[in-house]
Amino acid sequence: MKKYSVGIDVGGTFTKLGLVAPDGSVIQSLQIPTEPSKGPAHFTRRAAAIVKAWNFGSVGLGLAGGVDAKTGSLLFVPNLRGWTGFSFKKAFSKSLGVPVTVENDANAAVWGGYVVALKKQPHATVIGVTLGTGVGGGLVIEGRLHRGASGYAGELGHLTLELDGPRCRCGRRGCLEAYAGTHAILRAAKARMRRLPSPLTPKAVAAAALSGDRGARAVWDEVGTRLGQGLAGLVLVLNPDAILLLGGVARAGRLVLDPIRRVFAAQPFREPFKQVVLSAPAQRDWGVVGAALLSRERRG
Amino acid sequence: MKKYSVGIDVGGTFTKLGLVAPDGSVIQSLQIPTEPSKGPAHFTRRAAAIVKAWNFGSVGLGLAGGVDAKTGSLLFVPNLRGWTGFSFKKAFSKSLGVPVTVENDANAAVWGGYVVALKKQPHATVIGVTLGTGVGGGLVIEGRLHRGASGYAGELGHLTLELDGPRCRCGRRGCLEAYAGTHAILRAAKARMRRLPSPLTPKAVAAAALSGDRGARAVWDEVGTRLGQGLAGLVLVLNPDAILLLGGVARAGRLVLDPIRRVFAAQPFREPFKQVVLSAPAQRDWGVVGAALLSRERRG
Repeated sequence: MKKYSVGIDVGGTFTKLGLVAPDGSVIQSLQIPTEPSKGPAHFTRRAAAIVKAWNFGSVGLGLAGGVDAKTGSLLFVPNLRGWTGFSFKKAFSKSLGVPVTVENDANAAVWGGYVVALKKQPHATVIGVTLGTGVGGGLVIEGRLHRGASGYAGELGHLTLELDGPRCRCGRRGCLEAYAGTHAILRAAKARMRRLPSPLTPKAVAAAALSGDRGARAVWDEVGTRLGQGLAGLVLVLNPDAILLLGGVARAGRLVLDPIRRVFAAQPFREPFKQVVLSAPAQRDWGVVGAALLSRERRG
Repeated sequence: MKKYSVGIDVGGTFTKLGLVAPDGSVIQSLQIPTEPSKGPAHFTRRAAAIVKAWNFGSVGLGLAGGVDAKTGSLLFVPNLRGWTGFSFKKAFSKSLGVPVTVENDANAAVWGGYVVALKKQPHATVIGVTLGTGVGGGLVIEGRLHRGASGYAGELGHLTLELDGPRCRCGRRGCLEAYAGTHAILRAAKARMRRLPSPLTPKAVAAAALSGDRGARAVWDEVGTRLGQGLAGLVLVLNPDAILLLGGVARAGRLVLDPIRRVFAAQPFREPFKQVVLSAPAQRDWGVVGAALLSRERRG
């Protein structure tokens, strides 16, 4: 079987494509605009034309939405209107002649983190959190990606932390995303930092915190504490071996890990927290890597 | 292989023992005092002496605490002090000469509900909630009991619903148990019912609600709403096929199911709620049934 796999991480604006080795290293990669208005068939033609030049045995797609793994089509999608129902699995496998796997993008990213950062520790249960504009996630349960009854498992960004908390993009209040998503971080920075960095990004707020800005530190303490509260509940329910923070905002590293650890340390029921390994592995295109590795896994 | 299995549900005060058929029906059963102060070896001798008269191929124990499934001993236990470290697996298999399985009691009960009430629907993901003095639970993930990294999975009674909510027995505030455990139900009944039933039990509060007592109805609405809030988060994370309410308080049936359904219907993100089957199956000794069926499962 061919050694390499292709991973395609399809976002609402940009799509990343990569040729991925079995150990998760990215041999080649590039980014193209998704152009959602031109529809999924047009997208598939463009993406397939690019990867055709590569040498690979399978293709994995990560899509930002609910995915029917059997047909490889989108069931529900916030950012790619008009793309539901189209079988990416069929279209890509017809065009490229290899097995194709289609998965939710956060699930794919978490699978990538499990295989690469945790070296696919056998039978491990892993909670993965993707931190970016949105807060999402995925679960590996005893070494297998948990998709759930209809492919929506892992949507931990909309766990309610406070019923009367800040308004979330989803319409409700007090979701984890309303405390730890990019919008929340920037809003908190505006409220707490005396001198705002320009441009104002989570990365800039992290840099300010690391160089001693008290307001910026308070922002990350709040983000980490809220993540810790949400994750503490999931540790009680799932008793995981590990928690992975992935995505751009996870680059804040210990700024966000330290307050999570403090929340965990303050739990009265210690037992399920004892073995949890909490980490924010060095940034990779986890969506690309994970989709590729998942396609490798599923081609058997 | 012998058709029947023995299930033993060990509580802090009483222990139930039953001879269970493969379909989960209880052929024979009885209850003995646990007598925790006399220690686990004494308990094992008494229990073994009773079941010896029966004809069975395996024994399953459900224990109220964290269980090491390999050694079949308690790791952590709130109500059976001094019982940790004793290998029930070794002691019972030596005494009875059959394979013995030891499991957390809520996990066992949920397994029983999955096999009997859900007819062991293949690959199903099930959230089970045990409602009684404490609120506990267990998870079946794609048809397998999820124990977690150290056997504590399913502890959903201590999910935090409100950081500044009512004090919980665990020392924290706002846990699901602090809203839906027996103590919370009776406290709410005292606050809301004009004429208190005597004796004041969850069963009596349910009877009052069914005969039109407004205060009693408000109690169950609150309990169900809080359960719905906790469960809604878990539906987002686990995308289950079914939710089972088990245990004495689950006999309140639609009094508690209806408000949960209302909370689910009000969720903005509908998809993971669509297929969820929510039920409170008719009361059985789920701990006994589940422990017996699990031992049958694990003997191969």
